[in-house]
Amino acid sequence: MLSVLGTIRELETGRLSVHGVYDRVAEAIARREPVVKAFAHLDLEGASARAFNGIAGPLMGLPVGVKDIIDTADFPTEYGSPIYAGWRPKADAAIVTMARRAGSVVLGKTRTTEFAHLHPSVTTNPHHPGHTPGGSSSGSAAAVAAGMVAYAFGTQTAGSVIRPASFCGVAGLKPSYRLLPTVGTKTFSWHLDTIGLFAAHVADCAYVLSALAGRELRVDTKDFGAPRIGLARWPTYEEASADMRHAVEHLARRASARGASVVDLQLPSLFSEAEAAQRIIMDFEGAQSLAWEIETHGADLSPELRVALEHGQHLSPIAYDSARSTAHVARRVFGDLFQDVDVLMMPSAPGAAPEGLGATGSPNFNRLFTLLGVPAVNVPGLVDGSGLPLGVQIVAPFGKDRAALAAADWVERLIARG
Amino acid sequence: MLSVLGTIRELETGRLSVHGVYDRVAEAIARREPVVKAFAHLDLEGASARAFNGIAGPLMGLPVGVKDIIDTADFPTEYGSPIYAGWRPKADAAIVTMARRAGSVVLGKTRTTEFAHLHPSVTTNPHHPGHTPGGSSSGSAAAVAAGMVAYAFGTQTAGSVIRPASFCGVAGLKPSYRLLPTVGTKTFSWHLDTIGLFAAHVADCAYVLSALAGRELRVDTKDFGAPRIGLARWPTYEEASADMRHAVEHLARRASARGASVVDLQLPSLFSEAEAAQRIIMDFEGAQSLAWEIETHGADLSPELRVALEHGQHLSPIAYDSARSTAHVARRVFGDLFQDVDVLMMPSAPGAAPEGLGATGSPNFNRLFTLLGVPAVNVPGLVDGSGLPLGVQIVAPFGKDRAALAAADWVERLIARG
Repeated sequence: MLSVLGTIRELETGRLSVHGVYDRVAEAIARREPVVKAFAHLDLEGASARAFNGIAGPLMGLPVGVKDIIDTADFPTEYGSPIYAGWRPKADAAIVTMARRAGSVVLGKTRTTEFAHLHPSVTTNPHHPGHTPGGSSSGSAAAVAAGMVAYAFGTQTAGSVIRPASFCGVAGLKPSYRLLPTVGTKTFSWHLDTIGLFAAHVADCAYVLSALAGRELRVDTKDFGAPRIGLARWPTYEEASADMRHAVEHLARRASARGASVVDLQLPSLFSEAEAAQRIIMDFEGAQSLAWEIETHGADLSPELRVALEHGQHLSPIAYDSARSTAHVARRVFGDLFQDVDVLMMPSAPGAAPEGLGATGSPNFNRLFTLLGVPAVNVPGLVDGSGLPLGVQIVAPFGKDRAALAAADWVERLIARG
Repeated sequence: MLSVLGTIRELETGRLSVHGVYDRVAEAIARREPVVKAFAHLDLEGASARAFNGIAGPLMGLPVGVKDIIDTADFPTEYGSPIYAGWRPKADAAIVTMARRAGSVVLGKTRTTEFAHLHPSVTTNPHHPGHTPGGSSSGSAAAVAAGMVAYAFGTQTAGSVIRPASFCGVAGLKPSYRLLPTVGTKTFSWHLDTIGLFAAHVADCAYVLSALAGRELRVDTKDFGAPRIGLARWPTYEEASADMRHAVEHLARRASARGASVVDLQLPSLFSEAEAAQRIIMDFEGAQSLAWEIETHGADLSPELRVALEHGQHLSPIAYDSARSTAHVARRVFGDLFQDVDVLMMPSAPGAAPEGLGATGSPNFNRLFTLLGVPAVNVPGLVDGSGLPLGVQIVAPFGKDRAALAAADWVERLIARG
């Protein structure tokens, strides 16, 4: 993988030129892309030409992959749907302009599931082509894992950043809700859709987020010390594989041995209701957001999306209002869990990437935190018995993105120590 | 004006055919549009042909004007900016599909100020061509006032629905935040942008909102009785003209004489801070939402918009976070004001429509309620000494849209009694 911070250090010290960066990218693409199929559209020549024109800004010409649910004026943007084949938006999404301003170069559009919902793209898992890369930000996670971009943008409405990051063995970050603007991103659920990042390491995500959001969120500039961790075996925990449960619990013991405070933490049952509320809000809003597509191109929607949207169309406004109230209360109560801990730790997904490309795995370990709008980070580095990545999720209260990133970085370094 | 409910009654009883509706519209357009200039794009022939194909749904073929900040696949959508001259979105905005589903026919795109900000369109006030119609939903308010559509969509980020409704003498409704989806509307500020409605009467707005939102919000189906009114002479009140203050206070006395409870109500100083927060959130988010336009077409932005966006770009994330916290607290505290009253009553704008077309008037009576996300209604019917409309604003707590509409309808009928 191309670490953002590692590459910048090489560029700054002159050990690497921007040509060298694009040579590495070109090599990775030639070697991996035919099997991984991370890109819907790719312009290596154009991107490297733009980068050679002069590197500037904190992102110094680094190539970024942009999930194809996010508008770009200079690439087609197809939202993973035949309805939008060849579609060219007029404008870049806000996040794309912000990345370009910070010095980044868009290498291409990464594959998304249909409208960032469940119907998979053709992307394969870089660790095993017979396994799903996860979704919906399939191409973004895979492109980073295969070393084809320095970082990538994704979006999460249920588990679309943390899950693919976990399956592909890369760092993934879903920041606090609307820390990064979703303007110019195809809406599925306006209360849930959140822009996220993929990079080799947690500290890379923190660096990119700082550069884009204009906030001090880096974790490579000082020592934050060992975190106070709440190990959350919450309702969904039984869905986790034995490998996953063992990995997380073993990691918790190691963290404790290295000076972290680790306590068991139960989530009140309100959070099970909140999970149910996430599903209601997602489907109800999805049916409104995709109203034009349903009315005018219904036959071009996948069966799984059609079922979800029909469900959304039949939900009552009262059920929706009640789900929003539950979310509101859950957001307030969630903060109270953090009196003695800085972060929660739990699986990022039920286990390693499932076999097969027909489905993208379960978002059930992620839904709640998307609903709550709180920062969540996937920490890479663990593997299961067959060598497939297992992701650990770190979650912090709303607005405490740096606490989440610092703890996740600490855990990542703990894992790397072996 | 074409009352929605009145027209539907005529259609249902067979006194009027859908041809007759479009004859009235055609007559109004021929007579008024050359001076009023409400439409950026208009297709009378296409709309009437679609309506004649069979009227169905609660909106029964009624012609609607869609503010040109809202995407349509079959009309150009130019956002009031030369940057988007001739632009054709791929899809209809969610609200447009929902209106078509309910039986409405899009007659045309109504003129908006540049990106729904301050730089005016060419639309004039139907009550006096030398006066502003208000903004940013200038064409929507004017088209309803001139009888050219049965109702129209607008958007409000500061005062862009209630102010033009007030200046043009029509009913205007800004429902609770996100009761109507903004998907497919050009974003200025995602925490503030709200879809609103214009129609001849308050009960018409309530009927249309019910039809679109699938909620029971009509106020013409039963008697809600006299409301309990809090007369809010809040910080901005000194900005109101003598005519306006006199009109509102006289109306309050009449309401009291007719059985409404009317009490004076002071808003705590927190709400002045909240008003300031609205400005910060609007400019900070606006600079992100229009990042692409700033970077690639800066010279095509008006000077007033450029100044606002530069202000937004220089605001610190800390100031923004603090503004959002203020908004959060203000939303909670606002509900507490309604222990003894159902609604607040106050001016919709400082006075009648100002003379001149170079500016669209002040949104200072509206900003706070946009920030709070609460329902606000402009009640038409009053006039100043020179015969120009004066609007009265009715505001209710979040989610109490029907209470706001019922009280506004009661006040409108009180005014009509003379």
